[in-house]
Amino acid sequence: MVGTEKQTEWFGRPSEYLPGISIDCVIIGFNGHQLHILLLKMKKLNQWMLPGGFVHKDEDMDHAASRILEQRTGIRLPYLKQFHTFGELNRRDNSPLVNLTSPLDERFREITEWLKQRFISLGYLSLIDMHCSVPSPDVLSETCRWTPVQEIPELVYDHNRIAEKALEQIRNQINYLPVGMSLLPEKFTMKEYQTLYEEILQKKLDRANFQKKILKLGFLNRLEKHLTGGAHKAPYLYAFNPEKYNELLEKGIGYMS
Amino acid sequence: MVGTEKQTEWFGRPSEYLPGISIDCVIIGFNGHQLHILLLKMKKLNQWMLPGGFVHKDEDMDHAASRILEQRTGIRLPYLKQFHTFGELNRRDNSPLVNLTSPLDERFREITEWLKQRFISLGYLSLIDMHCSVPSPDVLSETCRWTPVQEIPELVYDHNRIAEKALEQIRNQINYLPVGMSLLPEKFTMKEYQTLYEEILQKKLDRANFQKKILKLGFLNRLEKHLTGGAHKAPYLYAFNPEKYNELLEKGIGYMS
Repeated sequence: MVGTEKQTEWFGRPSEYLPGISIDCVIIGFNGHQLHILLLKMKKLNQWMLPGGFVHKDEDMDHAASRILEQRTGIRLPYLKQFHTFGELNRRDNSPLVNLTSPLDERFREITEWLKQRFISLGYLSLIDMHCSVPSPDVLSETCRWTPVQEIPELVYDHNRIAEKALEQIRNQINYLPVGMSLLPEKFTMKEYQTLYEEILQKKLDRANFQKKILKLGFLNRLEKHLTGGAHKAPYLYAFNPEKYNELLEKGIGYMS
Repeated sequence: MVGTEKQTEWFGRPSEYLPGISIDCVIIGFNGHQLHILLLKMKKLNQWMLPGGFVHKDEDMDHAASRILEQRTGIRLPYLKQFHTFGELNRRDNSPLVNLTSPLDERFREITEWLKQRFISLGYLSLIDMHCSVPSPDVLSETCRWTPVQEIPELVYDHNRIAEKALEQIRNQINYLPVGMSLLPEKFTMKEYQTLYEEILQKKLDRANFQKKILKLGFLNRLEKHLTGGAHKAPYLYAFNPEKYNELLEKGIGYMS
């Protein structure tokens, strides 16, 4: 199959989907230095977007979010958290996708016509360890890539706002979301943990104070140092005590207070 | 106009609305003793529900929420907070409304047919001073009434779940929502404030401890006692210092920690 045929095949028929409802996924990762967001780049168009899609008529919304993410990026997450629904009238104004119409392909035209309707989009969020998640683009996309959140390009529709709203929610709910255990690898340094908090809160934190407060909460296990070569200079590694962490999270890990 | 005609007139035509999308409002009040929720009772059917409705094709979702609340209950709120979107496939199963069809009225039948489709519902929430908000039922409803949240009857569709989810969110975000300033009257006693927290958290709090912690945060002004008759026995009245309150709220009023 040539490109367009493959794409229409992949999409199926508009009549399979709920009209006017879409899902967009904000997937956040951390590489030890910077927060990253998962973005797709549309084929042919020089246009980036959040991984998103549409809901089958016989499908729960939450299930649709997982399916869409996997179909579009190859990343499988059993659970994504719904964080906000975007229902502004003008949220898809000036859409570049509307101009995709190819007069040569009837089904492709049917799809692009369908895409012109008003859509309400449900935003879903997940925080994941980006080292364990290698994304791969779907047939509609040229690239699927982790991008530093400080370098998010201009996205389609209101996707910049959707991404910003998700990051704002992570910031505001930092004490109630499992940011550490979701975003850090199994073993990590205190510096990586602090950098994660600094990246989310967008401000520098005092090292001694951060370490003292975090350790006092008692949800980290300090691991043995492996004494090889110059390893006496290596920093301690830590791992989470999941029971203690989840117990504290319910009340809020109020390290900032 | 007779009943049904009035109702179809009020509703307009299904084609004016976005298909498959509805809004349900959870409006919470407090009378000094108990949390209350605003409920409507459908005419003819012995069936209670949240105030809800549908979105015009040319209307922002947030605006629709305010309009629907005012049309259905007479209560005017410029802003309601979107708190969750309900998209389960079976959320409207066993709906009693589907049986409303009157074979005598074509437009009424058109509306009831439209109501049979799958709906995704956006839940909106507001906390208000119930003394300042006298509800009045719309043409579809027999009654519009504040009901204690401990006595919520069986509601249509998944409305019990929507109400429960809203109350759960108020409980979880008690430190970040302006529960006190939204739900209490202008002047109130410390006992009323404590009862409000106890009602939200669904547990008893220690009186001395509560008072000490709240006063220490410094966002309450203690008002003068009016010394008349037996007034020396009357408790102190308090009022909020809005600037201080809002400033603290941003970081979370962590009185529980």
